[in-house]
Amino acid sequence: MRLCEALKKHISDGYYPAHMPGHKGDPRYSFLGDILKYDITEIDGLDDLHNADGVILESEKFAAGLYGVKETHFLINGSTVGVLCAILGVTKPGDKILVARNCHRSVYNAIEVNRLDVRYVYPEMAEDIGIFKGITSEPVEESLKKDPQIKAVIITSPTYEGISSDIAGIAETVHRYGAVLIVDAAHGAHFGFNEDFPEAAGIQGADIVINSVHKTLPAPTQTALLHINDIHGVKVDSKEIKRQLSIYQSTSPSYLLMAGIDNCLSIVSEHGEELFEQYLYNLKRFEDRASKLKNIKVIGRKLLKDQYGIENGDPCKLLICSSGLNKSYCMSGRELYDILRREYHIQPEMAADRYCLLIMTIMDTREGFDRLINALECIDEKFSDGYTPFMTGTDDERAGVFGSENNVYGGINGILYGSRPVRRMSAYEAVDRPSYYVRLEEAAGRISASYIYLYPPGIPVLVPGEEISEEMAAAIGCSTDRGLNVLGLKDNKEIRVHG
Amino acid sequence: MRLCEALKKHISDGYYPAHMPGHKGDPRYSFLGDILKYDITEIDGLDDLHNADGVILESEKFAAGLYGVKETHFLINGSTVGVLCAILGVTKPGDKILVARNCHRSVYNAIEVNRLDVRYVYPEMAEDIGIFKGITSEPVEESLKKDPQIKAVIITSPTYEGISSDIAGIAETVHRYGAVLIVDAAHGAHFGFNEDFPEAAGIQGADIVINSVHKTLPAPTQTALLHINDIHGVKVDSKEIKRQLSIYQSTSPSYLLMAGIDNCLSIVSEHGEELFEQYLYNLKRFEDRASKLKNIKVIGRKLLKDQYGIENGDPCKLLICSSGLNKSYCMSGRELYDILRREYHIQPEMAADRYCLLIMTIMDTREGFDRLINALECIDEKFSDGYTPFMTGTDDERAGVFGSENNVYGGINGILYGSRPVRRMSAYEAVDRPSYYVRLEEAAGRISASYIYLYPPGIPVLVPGEEISEEMAAAIGCSTDRGLNVLGLKDNKEIRVHG
Repeated sequence: MRLCEALKKHISDGYYPAHMPGHKGDPRYSFLGDILKYDITEIDGLDDLHNADGVILESEKFAAGLYGVKETHFLINGSTVGVLCAILGVTKPGDKILVARNCHRSVYNAIEVNRLDVRYVYPEMAEDIGIFKGITSEPVEESLKKDPQIKAVIITSPTYEGISSDIAGIAETVHRYGAVLIVDAAHGAHFGFNEDFPEAAGIQGADIVINSVHKTLPAPTQTALLHINDIHGVKVDSKEIKRQLSIYQSTSPSYLLMAGIDNCLSIVSEHGEELFEQYLYNLKRFEDRASKLKNIKVIGRKLLKDQYGIENGDPCKLLICSSGLNKSYCMSGRELYDILRREYHIQPEMAADRYCLLIMTIMDTREGFDRLINALECIDEKFSDGYTPFMTGTDDERAGVFGSENNVYGGINGILYGSRPVRRMSAYEAVDRPSYYVRLEEAAGRISASYIYLYPPGIPVLVPGEEISEEMAAAIGCSTDRGLNVLGLKDNKEIRVHG
Repeated sequence: MRLCEALKKHISDGYYPAHMPGHKGDPRYSFLGDILKYDITEIDGLDDLHNADGVILESEKFAAGLYGVKETHFLINGSTVGVLCAILGVTKPGDKILVARNCHRSVYNAIEVNRLDVRYVYPEMAEDIGIFKGITSEPVEESLKKDPQIKAVIITSPTYEGISSDIAGIAETVHRYGAVLIVDAAHGAHFGFNEDFPEAAGIQGADIVINSVHKTLPAPTQTALLHINDIHGVKVDSKEIKRQLSIYQSTSPSYLLMAGIDNCLSIVSEHGEELFEQYLYNLKRFEDRASKLKNIKVIGRKLLKDQYGIENGDPCKLLICSSGLNKSYCMSGRELYDILRREYHIQPEMAADRYCLLIMTIMDTREGFDRLINALECIDEKFSDGYTPFMTGTDDERAGVFGSENNVYGGINGILYGSRPVRRMSAYEAVDRPSYYVRLEEAAGRISASYIYLYPPGIPVLVPGEEISEEMAAAIGCSTDRGLNVLGLKDNKEIRVHG
């Protein structure tokens, strides 16, 4: 019996709860109402996340089967804890690790916790729009050849924008050098269930894969899966990873979250076929209408391939931008985001400088897609008529502080993510040393003592220990003005530095 | 505006969610139904847990006001992450720390992560029943005098069984030596709201306090609060603690959990007075009837004081045992637990060797207490008639393998928790060294390479690096036979050792 079923049985059995949690399933006063009954603790018959041998283990085995991996662990502290424990589980303090520079903050945290000796592989940027392309096996092989002691390689695939790396090729390379491949596939939990979607990372040869089930599948926020494989010749010490998870996940795990994962697995296995087909049908209708827009461009799989040579885009990620990307009159991602939100009550996922990102999933209905395309058609039409009440700044300002040469290169996102800061010391050294704040204008040439990142998705543009270039300081200074959410500064104006 | 209100407003505004989470608030297929609408992500107006400056910060400030502390942080990864981050936030690797030996596993994890140099203070045991008494300031002062470089002191108060330490006295002592006092008050979130309950730890002078709101207040499981104080002369670096929290808590925090905390704060502030009074009234009725039981003993505040000299017991913890504690015919905690569960459909919190623990809260109603006392009266009566179908083993077996002398001392819990294993190396050294499994019968004299603990609550009886005494090996071997839940063994029979 799996977790959800066991939980329902326990509830219907009508035990009086002389135990935690303190709400006792009583719906009075709580917005959670009768759902509180599902919020139980680790009592008889309901297993124990950290030592699963009953209904939770059954659910985890079911997940492993669905994703075609050896074993799966439920995460109730997000992909964050999965990435952390995967890295801590396969490295010893001081080990060498190869990291894609566009990894999530949690990867950098793991590096700091285990004081790892980090090497980077830099993904290329897609011009104009400023998003990361996928990583190929060549730069990975180059790094491994130079540093064969590298213990683990970690990449993010797909990215926040849905761009996949060549996992199969990278896995083959990494295994040839005896290292472990960890794939942060937080945004790829929905891969592998329909042939129009990319394959799952585990199937392609990754040794450890982390999936956020809440991001692109119908599961509650903060839930994720950690998969471990051993069919590819590299032995991962799954006991050590479990030990790390038992340190960094609550010993009072939420049954709402765990049952939410189990429930999500059931939805995928029982209704997935129909839901994915329906999704693709609705998307096709949407894309047909979107292709007729004149001033608004919806960058989906087709445009990614035709325009940027990017294969295998995620059909669930839509980048919305105005078509004249490199001209001064284009709307910023923030403006599009604000218009969608304020005028059409559509809440996008994120605003980048040049686009705004929408995440659509198998739970989006035809009506949802219609509401979206109607809004985009409306904006497109107003834009055609020269009606641009939402444009801010003068043409010169809008051309960007960086001049046309930089500006064509993906806007501020392109500058922030595309530059390769010089590393002057390790992140943990930089964090430990005394530091002070300076204004961004005075930061050039100094060494950052903080992580500076755009949120979401939380990829650092500066890591502690890296030198701040003049261009970087200016781009950071500009990005808050352009409505991007920059974290790590003080009052949006000062940065913590050494030297 | 606080979080819950903002969330309700966002829902009623009817935005179309072109963002995570993937369920899109669609109640189809999910047991969470319409509650999914509350499970939102960090979008405009709903703040960001790791950089709170809006509605989450407002809720955290409200919490700080309720508990009378300087600042409060919401935890969505349980008290586990609070304890971990509190310790990592106030120590540097290798620092000295003074730890009450009955602390939760998470304290030992923090020691291992930061490779701390640990000193223990041992709480006394209450005879007969085998529970920890509170800690006084004397042994703390003794340790600090011996090792004035100790940076932090951490104690658990109240314990799982509701026993408080002399926090005010300990705080005064700790501050005199310039150290920081951390109180793991996971089981004390409900203290300080009614004069018949103990005072909150922050008010008594602790510098950092961790409360699980889900354990004894009406909040969803896995939610907790970390309070920081600075009114007692010791400066805690709250930025460093926040930095640690941003490493070890998900960057996709659950709004169900966060709103659940905020909702709980509202319940306490708006209905707390009435709910606590009602609770005490119901408890009084229950205790009056319980005092007339002949063979079953309910150990609450009064008996704790009269029989064991323990002041300030938690009115929400009830220890149920058979009255002839040190006689061979007494029922074990496991038997009482099983009878309550199987015959009366009352689910207790935990079975110890000599008692079973019930957690009652302000959400328990008069009907709940009645159901409980009716069951206990029924068991009591059957027991009087000599009807003991639930007793297992012969009288000799029941007298215990350890002979009467040990047996009077709190049963197996008393032996496991009461012994003070000799430390032969640090826990992290022991974990790093090669080790192997031996049968418990052959373990005496060897060094443990694992944590062995009873769960719940998760207090280690053996820490890696400690020598396994003959008595300890026998007690561990026996405890699984007596229905206690021992973690850290292999197949309940083998233990990982060095030497």
